Amino acid sequence: MTLPESEVDVLIVGAGPAGLMLATWLSRLNIRTRIVDKRSTKIMAGQADGFQCRTLEILDSFGIDRVWKESNHMLEVCFWNPDENGTIRRTGRVPDTPHGFSRFTECVLHQGRMERFFLDHLKEDGDMIRIERPVLPSGLQIDEGNMEDATAYPITINLRHLTDEEATPDQGSNIPNGLFRSNLTADDTEDLIKISSGKEGTEEVVRAKYVVGCDGAHSWTRKQLGFKMEGEHTEIIWGVLDIVPVTDFPDIRVRCLIHSASAGSLMVIPREKRVVRLYIQLKEVSEGGGAVDRSKVTPEQILKAAQKIIAPYKLDYEQCDWFTAYQIAQRVSDGFDKFERIFLAGDAVHTHSPKAGQGQNVSLQDSYNLGWKIGLVARGQATREILKTYATERQQIARDLIAFDQKFSKLFSGRPAKDVSDETGISLEEFRNVFHKGAVFAAGLSVDYGPNILVVKEDEGKDGGVRCKPALANKVKIGMRLDSRKVVNQSDSLPIELQKLLPSDGRFRLIVFPGDISKSEINSRYERLGEYLSSPKSVVSIYTPQNAPRDSVIEILTVHAAKRIEIELQSLPEAFHPFDRAKGWDYWKVYADDESYHEGHGKVYENFGIDRDQGCVIVVRPDGYVATVVAVEDTQSLEAYFVRFMIKV
Amino acid sequence: MTLPESEVDVLIVGAGPAGLMLATWLSRLNIRTRIVDKRSTKIMAGQADGFQCRTLEILDSFGIDRVWKESNHMLEVCFWNPDENGTIRRTGRVPDTPHGFSRFTECVLHQGRMERFFLDHLKEDGDMIRIERPVLPSGLQIDEGNMEDATAYPITINLRHLTDEEATPDQGSNIPNGLFRSNLTADDTEDLIKISSGKEGTEEVVRAKYVVGCDGAHSWTRKQLGFKMEGEHTEIIWGVLDIVPVTDFPDIRVRCLIHSASAGSLMVIPREKRVVRLYIQLKEVSEGGGAVDRSKVTPEQILKAAQKIIAPYKLDYEQCDWFTAYQIAQRVSDGFDKFERIFLAGDAVHTHSPKAGQGQNVSLQDSYNLGWKIGLVARGQATREILKTYATERQQIARDLIAFDQKFSKLFSGRPAKDVSDETGISLEEFRNVFHKGAVFAAGLSVDYGPNILVVKEDEGKDGGVRCKPALANKVKIGMRLDSRKVVNQSDSLPIELQKLLPSDGRFRLIVFPGDISKSEINSRYERLGEYLSSPKSVVSIYTPQNAPRDSVIEILTVHAAKRIEIELQSLPEAFHPFDRAKGWDYWKVYADDESYHEGHGKVYENFGIDRDQGCVIVVRPDGYVATVVAVEDTQSLEAYFVRFMIKV
Repeated sequence: MTLPESEVDVLIVGAGPAGLMLATWLSRLNIRTRIVDKRSTKIMAGQADGFQCRTLEILDSFGIDRVWKESNHMLEVCFWNPDENGTIRRTGRVPDTPHGFSRFTECVLHQGRMERFFLDHLKEDGDMIRIERPVLPSGLQIDEGNMEDATAYPITINLRHLTDEEATPDQGSNIPNGLFRSNLTADDTEDLIKISSGKEGTEEVVRAKYVVGCDGAHSWTRKQLGFKMEGEHTEIIWGVLDIVPVTDFPDIRVRCLIHSASAGSLMVIPREKRVVRLYIQLKEVSEGGGAVDRSKVTPEQILKAAQKIIAPYKLDYEQCDWFTAYQIAQRVSDGFDKFERIFLAGDAVHTHSPKAGQGQNVSLQDSYNLGWKIGLVARGQATREILKTYATERQQIARDLIAFDQKFSKLFSGRPAKDVSDETGISLEEFRNVFHKGAVFAAGLSVDYGPNILVVKEDEGKDGGVRCKPALANKVKIGMRLDSRKVVNQSDSLPIELQKLLPSDGRFRLIVFPGDISKSEINSRYERLGEYLSSPKSVVSIYTPQNAPRDSVIEILTVHAAKRIEIELQSLPEAFHPFDRAKGWDYWKVYADDESYHEGHGKVYENFGIDRDQGCVIVVRPDGYVATVVAVEDTQSLEAYFVRFMIKV
Repeated sequence: MTLPESEVDVLIVGAGPAGLMLATWLSRLNIRTRIVDKRSTKIMAGQADGFQCRTLEILDSFGIDRVWKESNHMLEVCFWNPDENGTIRRTGRVPDTPHGFSRFTECVLHQGRMERFFLDHLKEDGDMIRIERPVLPSGLQIDEGNMEDATAYPITINLRHLTDEEATPDQGSNIPNGLFRSNLTADDTEDLIKISSGKEGTEEVVRAKYVVGCDGAHSWTRKQLGFKMEGEHTEIIWGVLDIVPVTDFPDIRVRCLIHSASAGSLMVIPREKRVVRLYIQLKEVSEGGGAVDRSKVTPEQILKAAQKIIAPYKLDYEQCDWFTAYQIAQRVSDGFDKFERIFLAGDAVHTHSPKAGQGQNVSLQDSYNLGWKIGLVARGQATREILKTYATERQQIARDLIAFDQKFSKLFSGRPAKDVSDETGISLEEFRNVFHKGAVFAAGLSVDYGPNILVVKEDEGKDGGVRCKPALANKVKIGMRLDSRKVVNQSDSLPIELQKLLPSDGRFRLIVFPGDISKSEINSRYERLGEYLSSPKSVVSIYTPQNAPRDSVIEILTVHAAKRIEIELQSLPEAFHPFDRAKGWDYWKVYADDESYHEGHGKVYENFGIDRDQGCVIVVRPDGYVATVVAVEDTQSLEAYFVRFMIKV
C-alpha cells in the first residue's frame, strides 16, 4: 500500500512544554512546522508546576503573561526540623527568590494551564501550527548524503494516527494520576505502535528538514538515534499529592522543607486555587529495598506517610486533584543531536527528581535555545554552523542540572543530624547552605554559554576579529541573559523594563548605550554610528532584504544617559528612529536612563557598569543572551561579529 | 394581535459603557437582567477613549485588567503657546497624573475595546446576560400603586426588534465617524420606532422590577419620564481626528495643549497602536455663528485646521481611523429616577464636551454606583431605602462635572493672552492653574458622597446611632473611595494591594485594623471583637443565610500592625479566618502592615492615619467607598449601621 507523503521544515515529536515552546518559536518565525503527540489530550492535572524566574522572563518575551497572573507566587521558604524531643519546629525562614534576581519570582501553577496558554498563543499567533494527536512516529530514516544542503529534506519519518481509545492509558484509579508517566512504570510507546500497525489509512510519510524529539524520558526519537541515558538511580521512592489540605500546620501556604526525626521528609508547595502539593518520602513502600509494589501507591498511602512526618499537626483532605510516585534518579543523554538535523530536548535528554521544580523549566529553555537557531537557518538568514551551538550550550546545562539535583535530593532524603557530632545526618546549617547556593541555579539565572560562533567573550581584535570589550559594561556577563532595568521612553516618558524591548521575534539587537548625548563630543560619536548604520555597507543594510523594514533583521535600540528633557528625538540620526512614509517616525527605539514620573529610576548605566562618557554597544542574541560588548564607534567589530554566521541578502 | 409577555428583574436600555457596567454588576450578583440596544453592533472605532484612575480601579475590582494592559498610558502633558513672534513653543511640562493619586494613571484606548472587554467578561461570568440588538423600547407604563412592594413588577415596557438594516445609520462617509451620534445631528430613535411599527412578530411586552435608561444623550427613557436637560450650549465647534500622524512635531506622543496665536487650539492625545487623537477648534466651519454646515465637516477639513494651528511643524496622515465634530454644550437632567424604579445613567443625564476625557468615566461610575444597590434590593438583602441614594449621590457629581467642563472648555476655546495686561485672553498661568486643580476631579478621585443612609460621617452616638470616629483613621475620608496600599498576607507573605481585597461582588466589608496584636492588651480587644462576630447576635450572623458561607454578606478582613513573623494565624479567633470542613482554614483574610520580601512596605497605618495602639474598623460599601469608621470594640455601632437598611434572614 502506498502511503501519503508530504514535506515540512520542522517536525516536532511531543507536545509537552519543550515541544510547545519550540512550536511557539517556529510559529513566531513563520516556519512550516508540524507537531505530533501520542496522547489524545494535553495534561489535565498534575505533573510539573514550578516556574522559575528565567522561564517567566522567556514567557513574557512571547507576550505570555498568564502564568504569572494565574499562578501562586511562592515567596517564602520555612525550614522545619526536629527539636531535642523529636518534635518538628520551625527553625528558619528565608525568601524563596532572593531580592534582585529578576523582575519575577518563583511561582507555581499546574502544567496543564501552561500547555493551555501555549495552545491559545499558537492560535492567536496565526493558527498555523496545530497539535496533531494522538499521532506517533513509527519509523525514521536519515539520508546522510544531504546533510549540508540547507534546502534538502534529509529526514524521513513515518507517522501513525491512533484512535483516542488506543492512546488513552488505563490510570488504574478514579483520581487523575501520573503513575503511567512515572519512572515506576514501563513505557507504552512500542505497544501503541504495535496496536496501530497494519491498519489502513493510519500511516503517512513525512520528509523534514529538521526533526526535534521532545518526547519525554522514554523518548522514542532518542532510541532511534541510539543515544543512551547515563547516570544513577536510587531505591528512594517519593509520593506526590495535589490536595486542598485541611490542617492546623501553620505554614501550609509557604514552601516548607520538613525533616521529621524518623518518619522521613516532606516538602510543601502551596499552589493556585487553595491546592497544595506535597512531596512525601515513602518509607513503607520502598522498605526492604526490593522491587516497588506499585499497587501500594495510593493517595491514602501517601497521605498516611505525610501524616507521620507532619505530626503532631493534623493533615487531611476532602479534595485530591492528582497523585503520583517516582524513584529518585539522575540521568543525562550521551547525545543531544545527530548531524544538526535531529535534535533532542527536555526530558528526552535529562531526567532527575522533581522537587527543585527544574524539569519543565530546563525543558522549555532547551527548546527556547534551539527554536530561533533552526528558524534563522530555515529562513536562510544564518548558516547551519549556528546549529552546533545547541548541543554545546545545552549539554553543559543538563550536566549542571544533574549535579545540582543529586546534591539537592540527598539533602532531602537524608536523615536530619541529631547534633553537631552526628556526621552521617544532614545538619540544618548544611541544608540551608546548599539551598542558598542553589537559588541562582534554580532560578535559571546562572546559565552562562561559553565562547562559540554566537558568543564572543574576549578581545579577538588582533586577528581582525571582534574587539570585545567586556570592561565597557563590567556588570554585564557576556554569555548570560541580559538583566532588566527600567528605562524611560524618549518620546512619551513611559517607563518600561529593558527586557520588554527584547521580544522573542528572531531579531538580533544592538543596544546602543551612547552615554550622555547632551555633551557634544559624545553626541558626535553617536551621530557617526548613526551615519554608519544608515550607510549601504552597514550590518543592517547588508543583512536586511530591500523591501523589509529596516529593523526586521537587526534592531537598533538606544539607551542614552542624558536627561530625557534635554534631548529632542527629531535631532537624532534617522538610524535610531527610522522613518516610514505611512507610519511616520518610530517613537519606540530611543530611551533615557532617567527618573520616571511614577516608577523611579532604573539606573541602567550604573547597574550594567557602563561609563556615561564611554558608553558601549551590547549585542544581544534573539534569545536575550548577551553575544558580545563593543565600543560605540567600533563598527568594524559589529561586522566581524555578524560575518561569522549571517548570510548576506 | 397578542404580544408575547415576560418578566425580568432589571431591564437595561442601551449597551454603551454605562449599560454594560450595570450588566456586569448584575451578572456578578446573579440578578435576572436583560439589556437591549438599538444599534446592531458595538462601537467599532472612535467615540470615548480616556480612562481615569478611578475607572481603572473599578474595572480592576471586576477582574478586568485589559484596558490597563492594552491602552496607552499617557504620562506627560506639554503646554505649547505662541512666543513673542507668534510661533508656538513648548512652555511647560507636567505629569498627566500627579504622583500618589492611585496605583493607576490616566490611559487611553478606544471605547470599542472597552465594550469588547465587558462583553467577554459577561460571557466568562456565566454567560447569563447577552446584549439583545438591534432592539429598542417603544412604550413605557408605570403601575404607580405598586411602588413599595419589593416583589412587584410595576414597569411595563414594549420592545421592538429591528432588522440590522433598519438599525444601521448612514454614515455619509467611507471613513468611520461619529457624526450620527454627535450633537450636531438629530436623533433617529423616533424614526426607528416608526420604521418598525406594525410589523408582525417584532414586538414584545416586558414587565420589570427596575428599568435603567443608559440610552445616551438623546435618551428615549428620559423623554418618557418627562425630564429636561438643563444648561447651556455655545456656537463653538470642535473636530476630532483619530489618525496615525506623519509629523515632525516633537511632542506628538505626549498629551499636548497647543494654543496658536490666531488659528485656535488643538489637543493631542497619543493613543494605542500608533494612533493619535487630535481635538481641533474649527474656526472656519463655525464662522459667522450661524447654523453649522455639517457637509463641511470632513477629515480633510479638520486636518487643514490642525495644520494651521500646529505650523510651522508639518502634520499629515495616510491612515485615518475615525472622525467626528461636536458643539460645546453642558447640560444636566432635572431628574435621575422616578419612584426609585426607573433610573437614568450616563449621557442620559449629563452631557458636556469630551476633551477632559470624563464622559465614559462618569457614565461608568453612575451605573457602578447603582448596580449593587438594585442588586441587594432585588436579592432581598437591603431595603428599597438605599435606592434613594443613587440620585442624591450622582446628581451632585453630574453638577460638579458640568461646572468643571465649563471652566475647562473656556480655557481651551479662549484666545491666549498676549501679555500680562491682556485681560480677555487666557494667560498660561491661569491655564496651568485650572488644569492642576482639575486633576483630582478629572482622575475621578474627588467623589465624596454626603451623609445618607449608607454613609455616616459624624458621631450619632447620643441617639443610639453610629458612634462614628473619623479621627481613628484621620487620613481616610468617609464618603470617598478607600485608597490602596500594599499589605502582606499573614499566611504566605504575598504583598497585595488593599483594593485587590475589595472585589466588586456585592459584599460589605469590615476592615479591622486591630493595631499591634503582638501586645496582649491590644490582642485581647481584637479577640473580644472576634468573639462578638462569631456570636449568633452579631451583624455577620443575623444577615447571613444559614447555609451560605460566613463571609458571603459581610466579609471581615484584618490588617494588623504587628510584625508578620510574630503572629501565627492559628492563634487568631476563627471569625477572622473562617474554617470550612472541605476547604480547611481561610488563608486570605488576615494581613500585616509589614515589609514584604520584594515590594517594600505599604505603611497603611501611617497612610490611613491609624494609631497602632488604638486601631479602628473601617466599614466599606460594596463599591469601595468608605461607609463609616468606628472603634475596634464598638460592636454596637456596627449593629446601628447595618440596621438602617439591611434585612435580617
